[in-house]
Amino acid sequence: MKTEQALFANDTFYLTFTSKDFDTMDRLWANDHPVLCIHPGWPALTERQDVMESWKRILENPGQPGMDFYNASALVVGNVVLVTCYEELSGSIMVATNGFVEESGEIKLFHHQAAPCAEPPPPTSAQTGHAV
Amino acid sequence: MKTEQALFANDTFYLTFTSKDFDTMDRLWANDHPVLCIHPGWPALTERQDVMESWKRILENPGQPGMDFYNASALVVGNVVLVTCYEELSGSIMVATNGFVEESGEIKLFHHQAAPCAEPPPPTSAQTGHAV
Repeated sequence: MKTEQALFANDTFYLTFTSKDFDTMDRLWANDHPVLCIHPGWPALTERQDVMESWKRILENPGQPGMDFYNASALVVGNVVLVTCYEELSGSIMVATNGFVEESGEIKLFHHQAAPCAEPPPPTSAQTGHAV
Repeated sequence: MKTEQALFANDTFYLTFTSKDFDTMDRLWANDHPVLCIHPGWPALTERQDVMESWKRILENPGQPGMDFYNASALVVGNVVLVTCYEELSGSIMVATNGFVEESGEIKLFHHQAAPCAEPPPPTSAQTGHAV
């Protein structure tokens, strides 16, 4: 997996969040690897069914705003890529780690952890949508 | 890498934190892979020097309490292992992800992210010290 592929998949993740597209979110998450999802303040979810139910609740919440992100940066470690970025959500900033792995030629999300960031850096690269 | 090795290294990480042993902390972190460290509320640190300086500040802080952890659980994804657990620090609970990778036969930490957990699960396995 190239870092560009992981950054593209990271972009897709946030577009999917903002468009509240549960089916695409479900397709984004890994099937053949264990998964780990930690929403801000939540405990760790490690069962795929629990992870997807959490996303269903979040995406089906009519009060849930969309999310932009910035300063995405990819780290290649073995055959996984971790992407870290800052999420802008209703004026507060979260720092997030998203982990990607390849399954049958597709880039899948196996890890997401987001939490409040008290002193986020300023944006040096805005990334919204698939234009890179 | 076996999950037992990653869980042992995770144990070492928290023992090192509690004993404020900077040299061991420095040896625990990866040298041949990129690193990513996100302390609670902090921005992402992706340079090894910045990560180690952050640990030096934390471990040299005389007011820094030790840390217990519980419910460590390991996920194998490719050639990395992510361990998730709950940290008990001065009465508050953090949820943490620690990522491990092998370097020349040694298990090294390449990723740490910890953040407050509002509704942590109860402990089902206490793990302090190297007895497993």
